[in-house]
Amino acid sequence: PGKIMSKVVELGKKTKKLGEDDPRRIIHSLKVGLAITLVSLFYYFEPLYDGFGVSAMWAVLTVVVVFEFSVGATLGRGLNRGLATFLAAALGFGAHHLASLSGKKGEPILLGLFVFLLAAAVTFVRFFPRMKARYDYGLLVFILTFCLISVSGYRDDQVLHMAHKRVSTILIGGFTALLVCIVIYPVWAGDDLHNLVANNIEKLADFLEGFGPEYFRISEDAETDKSFLEGYKTVLNSKQTEESLTNFARWEPPHGQFRFRYPWEQYLKTGSLTRHCAYRIEALSGYLNTDTRIQQRVCGKLEQPCLNLCSESVKALKELSFAIKTMTTPSSANSHITKSKIAAKNLKSSLNTGLCKGTDLLEVIPVITMASLLVEVVSCTEKITESFKN
Amino acid sequence: PGKIMSKVVELGKKTKKLGEDDPRRIIHSLKVGLAITLVSLFYYFEPLYDGFGVSAMWAVLTVVVVFEFSVGATLGRGLNRGLATFLAAALGFGAHHLASLSGKKGEPILLGLFVFLLAAAVTFVRFFPRMKARYDYGLLVFILTFCLISVSGYRDDQVLHMAHKRVSTILIGGFTALLVCIVIYPVWAGDDLHNLVANNIEKLADFLEGFGPEYFRISEDAETDKSFLEGYKTVLNSKQTEESLTNFARWEPPHGQFRFRYPWEQYLKTGSLTRHCAYRIEALSGYLNTDTRIQQRVCGKLEQPCLNLCSESVKALKELSFAIKTMTTPSSANSHITKSKIAAKNLKSSLNTGLCKGTDLLEVIPVITMASLLVEVVSCTEKITESFKN
Repeated sequence: PGKIMSKVVELGKKTKKLGEDDPRRIIHSLKVGLAITLVSLFYYFEPLYDGFGVSAMWAVLTVVVVFEFSVGATLGRGLNRGLATFLAAALGFGAHHLASLSGKKGEPILLGLFVFLLAAAVTFVRFFPRMKARYDYGLLVFILTFCLISVSGYRDDQVLHMAHKRVSTILIGGFTALLVCIVIYPVWAGDDLHNLVANNIEKLADFLEGFGPEYFRISEDAETDKSFLEGYKTVLNSKQTEESLTNFARWEPPHGQFRFRYPWEQYLKTGSLTRHCAYRIEALSGYLNTDTRIQQRVCGKLEQPCLNLCSESVKALKELSFAIKTMTTPSSANSHITKSKIAAKNLKSSLNTGLCKGTDLLEVIPVITMASLLVEVVSCTEKITESFKN
Repeated sequence: PGKIMSKVVELGKKTKKLGEDDPRRIIHSLKVGLAITLVSLFYYFEPLYDGFGVSAMWAVLTVVVVFEFSVGATLGRGLNRGLATFLAAALGFGAHHLASLSGKKGEPILLGLFVFLLAAAVTFVRFFPRMKARYDYGLLVFILTFCLISVSGYRDDQVLHMAHKRVSTILIGGFTALLVCIVIYPVWAGDDLHNLVANNIEKLADFLEGFGPEYFRISEDAETDKSFLEGYKTVLNSKQTEESLTNFARWEPPHGQFRFRYPWEQYLKTGSLTRHCAYRIEALSGYLNTDTRIQQRVCGKLEQPCLNLCSESVKALKELSFAIKTMTTPSSANSHITKSKIAAKNLKSSLNTGLCKGTDLLEVIPVITMASLLVEVVSCTEKITESFKN
């Protein structure tokens, strides 16, 4: 029993943390509850229920499957579902009518053939990467509705009636979900993408800011939190998140600072350059624990240029991140880049002069590599800055 | 019209390529068509249709949404759907019964409250990363079924009947989907994961194999295909694919060489080390275009150790990849690792002796960094090898 209690306590802590990390999660849960409760009112109000009957459940079903965390995702699923249902219902009705012309015996065979061909073809279309990214759900619903409508063993007029009810209940469900999603504390995928890209750049800056003092053992305080040296690791695997957020953001209407036809793919470019820089930083982080004795063979003159380089790069990156967040032009990022390039040059020449006087090259290779990677980070930073000009 | 024609031709080419790249896609599409056609037979056979009525469409619906590319994904979705439907139907029936006790007026209020609370709570649970990875679909279906059953405005016995029909049609649909998925050319997520991890290691080997000759301009043939130098890039972003394949593989029953309780997480470990190595290679690839004049300042003695190091690492990596594929123990990988470490030592000492005689250190920094990164690749390779021993 003590073990169970501790598990319950742990679960409670996890739940609390999940809510605290992103309070929008709690709001989202309440929104879903609200939307479903609203739609289920259909069952209670007799006149509405009489109109739709059992079909009213399609409205509930639509809310449950369409309601996503962000507005873009909800809109994407909603539009996919609505459009696919409409098209498939029309096509299904046509197929049903065509098959019924061929008499009692031919009908099931013909219908079976239609269903088989359409299901197989559309399933294959789902493999196209572009279709998968934006219309996967629509294609699924298309198969579904086509089968339901064309196969149902009713007469033509009944099928038409059924198709009509299905489309209209889905519209009602979809609109309810969208309304609740957009009106009450909307979560915009575009905002999330925006912040993700800005934060990722800041994470690189955080690493570089900590790298210098950590490498040269300037801050001897072992107690300090070193999580800033790990932050960049999430950047390494951010590609898929960025891509799906971009796909969601494309569905979203203009909002806040994001006007119509906002160039979302620009974020993908900046994101990819940021990841590029993170790969270099990952290589760099391997040299954090270089023995101080090795450092001292060259380091007297290296420390200052290294620290300068880092601090200028950090300033440039932080300015970029801030510029993204506030949607302003980074005014002084270029001058920081120039300064960091000068620091890189200084670093190289101090390597050249600080060495060669009898020092064993073999021993200082790690230091040289570290310096060389730092210089590369500068050129990565420059590329990120340049991507803003276009 | 000419423009449309060329678009059609292009689309045709793309379709053909999609099918040729992985013929299992075509088979999968046909399988989906078959499964749906099989299930839709319910509508044609009068006795079956009489038993289930409109509920028969749940069977079609289940096949469409449950049938996934791999057996693991299909099983996972099927089990999620089946279990969630069963549990939610039971709970929904209880809620419905409880609410109906409170009289005509209290019933809708109480039901609305139940639906709201359950939907909000379960939606929040979907945010737990572990639940999201394996039970996301089940939680969705749980909300759905609970709402449908508890809210439906029928009397108790009718609700029971409805719940029974829903559960049984879903079982039929799920079994049909699973049967077709497993019996006809099954696609195992476990196999895919297995091959992915092995191929990723091989891609690293391909890069290293090409790196030496390319760096030292040994093969002057500009015509040759250099795609092997790009192959490693897909490894950088393989994390999410590996994780989802692992989740699918866990649902799969023992098959082929994969026995019960196969340690799938081992692949995640190896995959993560492979990615680690790929990050180093990404940094290394930045030095591919180093000016030959710079190389010649040191290279006379560097070339051979570099080529040795690469070729031994390549042998080790290829052996590992082959060992994964054939599920054997890599017999000579260790000796190749030892040899590559010797080569790394030789490389370092040639750097030391080949330099320092008046050469400008500044100029050869790129060469030193390249060598240093190569040495790191060796230690990454060693880690991958070690991960096999446990």
